[in-house]
Amino acid sequence: MSNTLTGIAASAGIAIAKAFVHEEPDFTVKQKEASNKEKEVERLTEALAQSTKELEEIKQKALKELGEDKAEIFSAHLLVLSDPELIDSVKGKINDDGVTAEYALNEVANMFISMFENMDNAYMQERAADIRDVSRRVLGHLMGIQVVSLAAIAEDTVIIAHDLTPSDTAQLNPAVIKGFATDIGGRTSHSAIMSRSLEIPAVVGTKQATKTIANGDMIIVDGIDGDVLINPSEEELTTYKQKQQQFAEQKAEWAKLVNEQTVTKDGVHVELAANIGTPQDLDGVLANGAEGIGLYRTEFLYMGRTELPSEEEQFEAYKEVVERMEGKPVVIRTLDIGGDKELPYLDLPEEMNPFLGFRAIRLCLEKQDMFRDQLRALLRASAYGNLKIMFPMIATIEELREAKEILADEKEKLKADGVTVSEELEVGIMVEIPSTAVAAPQFAKEVDFFSIGTNDLIQYTMAADRMNERVSYLYQPYHPAVLRLIDMVIKAAHAENKWVGMCGEMAGDEIAIPLLLGLGLDEFSMSATSVLPARSQLSKLSKEELSTFAQNALLESTSEAVETLVKKHYQ
Amino acid sequence: MSNTLTGIAASAGIAIAKAFVHEEPDFTVKQKEASNKEKEVERLTEALAQSTKELEEIKQKALKELGEDKAEIFSAHLLVLSDPELIDSVKGKINDDGVTAEYALNEVANMFISMFENMDNAYMQERAADIRDVSRRVLGHLMGIQVVSLAAIAEDTVIIAHDLTPSDTAQLNPAVIKGFATDIGGRTSHSAIMSRSLEIPAVVGTKQATKTIANGDMIIVDGIDGDVLINPSEEELTTYKQKQQQFAEQKAEWAKLVNEQTVTKDGVHVELAANIGTPQDLDGVLANGAEGIGLYRTEFLYMGRTELPSEEEQFEAYKEVVERMEGKPVVIRTLDIGGDKELPYLDLPEEMNPFLGFRAIRLCLEKQDMFRDQLRALLRASAYGNLKIMFPMIATIEELREAKEILADEKEKLKADGVTVSEELEVGIMVEIPSTAVAAPQFAKEVDFFSIGTNDLIQYTMAADRMNERVSYLYQPYHPAVLRLIDMVIKAAHAENKWVGMCGEMAGDEIAIPLLLGLGLDEFSMSATSVLPARSQLSKLSKEELSTFAQNALLESTSEAVETLVKKHYQ
Repeated sequence: MSNTLTGIAASAGIAIAKAFVHEEPDFTVKQKEASNKEKEVERLTEALAQSTKELEEIKQKALKELGEDKAEIFSAHLLVLSDPELIDSVKGKINDDGVTAEYALNEVANMFISMFENMDNAYMQERAADIRDVSRRVLGHLMGIQVVSLAAIAEDTVIIAHDLTPSDTAQLNPAVIKGFATDIGGRTSHSAIMSRSLEIPAVVGTKQATKTIANGDMIIVDGIDGDVLINPSEEELTTYKQKQQQFAEQKAEWAKLVNEQTVTKDGVHVELAANIGTPQDLDGVLANGAEGIGLYRTEFLYMGRTELPSEEEQFEAYKEVVERMEGKPVVIRTLDIGGDKELPYLDLPEEMNPFLGFRAIRLCLEKQDMFRDQLRALLRASAYGNLKIMFPMIATIEELREAKEILADEKEKLKADGVTVSEELEVGIMVEIPSTAVAAPQFAKEVDFFSIGTNDLIQYTMAADRMNERVSYLYQPYHPAVLRLIDMVIKAAHAENKWVGMCGEMAGDEIAIPLLLGLGLDEFSMSATSVLPARSQLSKLSKEELSTFAQNALLESTSEAVETLVKKHYQ
Repeated sequence: MSNTLTGIAASAGIAIAKAFVHEEPDFTVKQKEASNKEKEVERLTEALAQSTKELEEIKQKALKELGEDKAEIFSAHLLVLSDPELIDSVKGKINDDGVTAEYALNEVANMFISMFENMDNAYMQERAADIRDVSRRVLGHLMGIQVVSLAAIAEDTVIIAHDLTPSDTAQLNPAVIKGFATDIGGRTSHSAIMSRSLEIPAVVGTKQATKTIANGDMIIVDGIDGDVLINPSEEELTTYKQKQQQFAEQKAEWAKLVNEQTVTKDGVHVELAANIGTPQDLDGVLANGAEGIGLYRTEFLYMGRTELPSEEEQFEAYKEVVERMEGKPVVIRTLDIGGDKELPYLDLPEEMNPFLGFRAIRLCLEKQDMFRDQLRALLRASAYGNLKIMFPMIATIEELREAKEILADEKEKLKADGVTVSEELEVGIMVEIPSTAVAAPQFAKEVDFFSIGTNDLIQYTMAADRMNERVSYLYQPYHPAVLRLIDMVIKAAHAENKWVGMCGEMAGDEIAIPLLLGLGLDEFSMSATSVLPARSQLSKLSKEELSTFAQNALLESTSEAVETLVKKHYQ
């Protein structure tokens, strides 16, 4: 039997191809002293120019092959390359200390990297990753080291890496990259999320893939069960080709459901919607037959730029989405910035606990000009389809009332100016803070709908940062307390004849779906690629049967007991 | 009429005395270049020696007059003075750059300060404050600036300051410092907490006290209503002397209750306990007639040192407390470290959101040697009085079960060694994470008691860092969701015949007390100085009447509505 590594199944499917082990070259800078300062500055300038040219090319390629979102990362890299603070520091070091360009660059880059890393927030850490990526590219030119571009791979390949950075995954061409396996990472790490969005089978967190696998080894990546087989036997190859075939057949089976409604075994219709980040994501949504958009995150409109997007720009983006959805519901969430997502041009203060900080609606209610621009854009777009507005991070009734007042105010103003605004516009809130779930009976009277944001709700309910590996075991979607909160929210909403959706990762989770159906969830919003499997699963479940079942699950003591219960009865 | 500033009432009482405006001297370093490097190193060495001598003296004075806890801050300062990393950097700068000692010290200190401040966690920020304090002391010596010591004040005084640092408050002598007023801070800022513990009337957050008040102005600090009167008229003086008299009378009235039980108007006994940090706090507890210790925080045993405390050392501390409480209940919480409280010698990784991180029971279950030492010390001390063990930050039943297993294991081992251990030892948990409040019915079956930790419970329920000023408006103890959670916990516990206490700030809050009594809380644990006012308040309340009242409060929409309701009916 072959050597098999076990990791975390990050993206379903079976990949069979030769390995390319993606290794970091050795960038140890050896020569320190330089004899000619001017020459060193010249060398630096040239390496910067070469890197800029290279990045422009990669960016164009990414733009063409992978879309605007993924090309964005290279705009960020180009910004680093032209950052005067960084470049001037390097030149200063060459001139003041008489060192080589590579030595100066390495010193300055490391200083910036450790400074940004110490800032302890995800945005700054991404900046650190950008600087590392870019400085290595420039160092490569200075030291004559060829930096292998993953974009250059032209034949069927499974990538083996310690981890894949945003810059790496943005370069992957799904036509030839059949799968990947990494040493580190979990189901919600960047590389795992990208693998699902690219629909590439992937296993992460194998701990030792790069140590065990050599270039050219034949590899099977089993993204269904989380296994990586190295140089499999003929027998294994046959078995996995069958599994690959079965998976393809299942996908084909799912594909037949693309134009179907989502109906349970006992004939109840539930709505299956998709989460999107940009209008570009609509292709995937339509291809996967989602019945609506349950969450349109508007942050991307605000990111990777130097100033706020104009009302007009936002209006165009919102209008495009509602128009292309042709009357199907589109729930647009107002800006949820702060926390792990920051905007440099807003100049927000550093916070000790950004996840418990000044973000989303808290920020919008203070920066009202910015908020009003977005609300006006949304109101104007509402005339072009079935748009619904949703406020994030609502913790108190006062916040909800204030946000609704501002919205009403802008609506009046637009109407006074003769602008058409939908009169059926629904206004709802994310239920992602425990206080709002617990006080749902009060909130239900003042909203049109709830959408449960499980990613944050679970994190706050368990008091465990879901990005922190040391406490990630506490991120428990099936914890009886989480289920009880969901139950409370749904009951409170239904008592007021309001509908309840869910737009966290949990909504597309195979174990969670029977429980959520049983608790009475009306709308499930998930990544587009999960819609068809979920539709297939729901068609085999009876809501009535599950209703009693789900209430019993609330009485279990642990997350594990709930999971076992579901697996025993419904898989 | 006099000029009156309004701020936040931080500590009750009326102070009338002349102002001493505590100002920072100007430490702007003017001379940069030095002609003689050796002389500069010598000057530095001398200033360090003088500062060390000074700090040793202040530390001894603090130890004698203010107790071990408050003297601790100067041990930290002495550590900074002998920190080789800092001192060597300053010397290096003098030698490499040919600058003066003050210039080098200022540069290096600022670098360390901004580095620590950027680390964005309270422990590191305190380190930054320590370095600032100490470097100013040394700069003072180098620049011939007299740094005024608050400990030197010998006549009745009201201190006016922008803010008071831990180093400032540790020097206050309550015999002459009648009160203070600051520009910044809130009810839970360091200076506010210290003012209550010292029983000095204080108003914080006046915004402009230092700008408006001059040395020698006659000042009235009204810590009941949050007012600061500057050069009051004769009439005002008379009024406030009456108010001072009334407050003294009220305190005398409260003092009569010191040996009484706590009984409501309708004859129900509830338990009024105190929170403590060290055995030294027992004097205040006994003087205020608490019926037990509802929370003994054990963190102080682990702090301000270079290695873990031994089992023996801990045993002595726990034994002292249970013995001095003479059979009254003493609830001891196992180590709650991490989050904003770190121990340098444990070398914990930096976290992006420490309040949602690897702390308390999460850490203890991993560092089992440390945890077992503490449990053995607690088990041994249990033979000497009425000791109860409480686990902090429990989020899942699995954590509770694992902690209980380890405890049972150590108990068996001790008994096998012939050590006496109480057989009536109760084991409970803090309910401070929303999941545990929501799943209280499940937890109630596996504990002997709950103690609701409202400081954290509110913070997680509202997803708002209570230390972050920008979201502190969301720290709402009367939010209907918080009250509902408390209600759920109490009902779940009573259904299993278990008792429920509360050990957060809320338990001693005048507005909260009627609600908590009505919801059925069995034990209220608060700072010792709140016990007598609470006993007095409870004696005037009817539990039966409040039961319906509290259930109605759960139906209100906002924190403000609840507060208004209580004020209308019960004040």
